[in-house]
Amino acid sequence: MRKNYLLTPGPTSVPSDVLLELAKPIVHHRTPQFAEIFHSVSEGLKYVFQTKNDVLVFASSGTGAMEASVVNLLSPGDKVLTIKGGKFGERWDEICKAYNIETFPIDVEWGKPVNPDDVRNILEKEKGIKAVFATLTETSTAVVHDIKTLGSIVKEFPAVLVVDAVSGLGAVDIQTDNWNVDVVVAGSQKALMLPPGLAFASVSNKAWDLAENSKCPKYYWNFAKARKSLKTDQTPYTPAVSLVVGLSKSLEMIKEEGLENVLARHSKLAKATRAAVGAMGLELFAPQSPSDAVTAIKVPEGIDGVGLVKTLKKKYDVMITGGQAQLKGKIIRIAHMGYSDTFDIIIVISALEMALVSLGYNLELGNGIKAAEEVLK
Amino acid sequence: MRKNYLLTPGPTSVPSDVLLELAKPIVHHRTPQFAEIFHSVSEGLKYVFQTKNDVLVFASSGTGAMEASVVNLLSPGDKVLTIKGGKFGERWDEICKAYNIETFPIDVEWGKPVNPDDVRNILEKEKGIKAVFATLTETSTAVVHDIKTLGSIVKEFPAVLVVDAVSGLGAVDIQTDNWNVDVVVAGSQKALMLPPGLAFASVSNKAWDLAENSKCPKYYWNFAKARKSLKTDQTPYTPAVSLVVGLSKSLEMIKEEGLENVLARHSKLAKATRAAVGAMGLELFAPQSPSDAVTAIKVPEGIDGVGLVKTLKKKYDVMITGGQAQLKGKIIRIAHMGYSDTFDIIIVISALEMALVSLGYNLELGNGIKAAEEVLK
Repeated sequence: MRKNYLLTPGPTSVPSDVLLELAKPIVHHRTPQFAEIFHSVSEGLKYVFQTKNDVLVFASSGTGAMEASVVNLLSPGDKVLTIKGGKFGERWDEICKAYNIETFPIDVEWGKPVNPDDVRNILEKEKGIKAVFATLTETSTAVVHDIKTLGSIVKEFPAVLVVDAVSGLGAVDIQTDNWNVDVVVAGSQKALMLPPGLAFASVSNKAWDLAENSKCPKYYWNFAKARKSLKTDQTPYTPAVSLVVGLSKSLEMIKEEGLENVLARHSKLAKATRAAVGAMGLELFAPQSPSDAVTAIKVPEGIDGVGLVKTLKKKYDVMITGGQAQLKGKIIRIAHMGYSDTFDIIIVISALEMALVSLGYNLELGNGIKAAEEVLK
Repeated sequence: MRKNYLLTPGPTSVPSDVLLELAKPIVHHRTPQFAEIFHSVSEGLKYVFQTKNDVLVFASSGTGAMEASVVNLLSPGDKVLTIKGGKFGERWDEICKAYNIETFPIDVEWGKPVNPDDVRNILEKEKGIKAVFATLTETSTAVVHDIKTLGSIVKEFPAVLVVDAVSGLGAVDIQTDNWNVDVVVAGSQKALMLPPGLAFASVSNKAWDLAENSKCPKYYWNFAKARKSLKTDQTPYTPAVSLVVGLSKSLEMIKEEGLENVLARHSKLAKATRAAVGAMGLELFAPQSPSDAVTAIKVPEGIDGVGLVKTLKKKYDVMITGGQAQLKGKIIRIAHMGYSDTFDIIIVISALEMALVSLGYNLELGNGIKAAEEVLK
C-alpha cells in the first residue's frame, strides 16, 4: 500500500468531494438544469476573481484563454508591452508574435519580479501601446509580481492590463476591480482544485472597448460570442460539462471557507515552507518576491537536482517538480496551492529531509519540520 | 424516484465504468504514468479512426479542432470548398471566413446529402482549391454524407479532404486511410462515450505537406507542436487529464466489443428507430441518407414540436432534442450513439408513443415498439 502525494504547481490535488461530482451522470448543456449550475459557477468565479466583470469560460487549458485575450483585444501591427522573466511570461510574447503584434518585452531576470518603473518608462516612451501582459505567479520561477502597482500605473495610460493568473488565482490575492486589472486569465487545475480542462477570462469595460476594434482572426475564442451566451447562462460551443459541475462544488468549498481565509491559509503554508527551507540550510530561488502558491528552492551544491525530484517520487511517492528550461536541475518547486493544508507541508518537508540525507546532503533530520511547525502551530 | 434517459446527439450518456475513471485522483501529466495512458489512448484513437496517421488531441470542444484544421492547413486568401446543408456544415464556412479564406460553398438543401458530382464540378472549374470541408453526420439534420465517394474524388485533385466526424466517429463507418480522408475531426462527447472537453484531429501526409505553407496565425491549435509532443506521448499544453483517463477506458470498451460490432450495433439501433417511425405514421426528415448516429423525425401536422420535446422530458424524463435554426419546432432528433443498446430504443419509442397520444396524435400504442422489436429481436 502506497499513498500518492501531489505537490506540483498544476495539476494539483482534487478534493474527493469534487472528484465525485465529476463521476455524476452527464447533464445536457442546453437545459435549465445546466444553466442554473453555470449561473452559480459564473457568480462564484466573480467572487474569486474579486470582480463585477463577466468571467468567460472556455473548454481549454489556461494557454487557450491567454491566446483568447490576445486575439480579442488586438490587431496585427499593434504595439504591446510583455513582461518576461519566466516560461509563462515568455508565452505572452510568443502568442503576440504569432499574431504579428509588435512586442516591447521587459526581460526580467528569472527569479526577480518586474520593476514597475520599467513598465511606466516604456509606456511613457512608446506612445500607442495597447496592452501590458503580465503574470501574477510566474510558475517557472515561483515569483509573484506586484500586480497592484502595475494596475495603478497602467490605468493612467490608454493601455489595458492583462494578467495571467493561471497559477495564483485563489492562492494569491488579486483584486481585479480594485487594482484596475482589465483581463485576468485563470485555469481550473491550480488553486481552483479541479482537473485541467477549463480556462477563464474576466473582461473589464476598458478591455471591451479595445476589443471592438480588434482585427485578429478568431472563432472559438470569440469573447463577444461568449458574453452573448453568458446572458442565458450558456457558452457558444459545447462546454466541458463534467468539469463545470465539479467547479460548482469547488467554488462552493471556497465560498464556505471564505476567500480571505483561503488566501491566509496559502500565505501561512508558504511561510512555513520558506521557514523550513532556511532551517535546512537551503536557499530560495526567488527570495525577493516569493509567491504564496509555489516555492522554488535552489538545489544545493553537489546534489543532482533531477535525481532529487526522482528520489522523492520513487522512494516516498511525493511528487514535486524540478526547474524548466535553463533552470532544469537547478531548482525544485513545491506547490502549496488549492487543496493543501498543514500536513501537506509537513509531508513534503519530511520527504525532502529524508531524500536530501540519502543523497549525501549534510542536514539534521527534523530541523526543517521544526521550523515549519513553528509557523503552522 | 425518477430515472433520467439522455438520448440527445451530444452530450451522450457516459457508462458508469467511465464515470468512475473520471473520479480517480489526478495523475500529473509530465510523468511516465500519464505518458503510458496517453500512448494507449493514441493507439486506441488510431483504431477507431481507422488510420495509421497521428491523431492529435486538444483540450477543447469539437469546434476547436475544426478551427485547428483550418488554421493549420491554410493561409488567408486561399480558396476552399465548403459543403453546407446544416448547422455544422455552415460552421466550416464561418470558420474559414473568419480567417479571410475564400469559400466556394455548396448549399445543400437541409435534410439532403451532398451530390458528389457537385464537388467534382467545382474542383474542376475552380483551379487552386486547397481543401474540401465536409461533414460525416450532420447533427442538425441527421443526414450522413457519402465520405467514401468524396474521398475518391478529392484524391484526384491537389486539395485535401477535411471531415467533421464529431457526430459520427464510432457510430458510422469512416475509413480514414482507405477512403483517403486527410483530416478527420472528432469530439469526446458523442460515440466515444465521454463528457465533452476533448477534441481530435487525424492528419495525413498530404495534409502535413499543405500545413507546411500555412500562414494563418496559430498558437494553441498548432498541429506541428502537437505532433512533436506526441513523439514523447505528451501534449504541448496541459491536457484535460481526467478526460484522457476516461477516454482510455471508453476506447478499451470499444476495442473489446470490436469496432465492426460497434458499427453494426449502431446500424441496427438506427434501423429499429426508423422502422418505429414508419409504423407510427411519422416521417423521417432525411429519408434519402439517414445517419446511423441520430434520427430526425418530422413533427406531424397539428403537433407542437417544442411541446413534444418538453413533454418527453417533463413527463417521462426522456431527453431528446428538437430542431435547430430554421428547423426549430419542425423536427425532433433522437440519438442512438455511443452507449446505446436495444432498450434505449424501446424506451424512447415508448415515451414518444405515449407523449404523442397525450398531445392528441392519432396512434395505436405499441405499434412503434412492435416494429422496433421486429428489427431488434
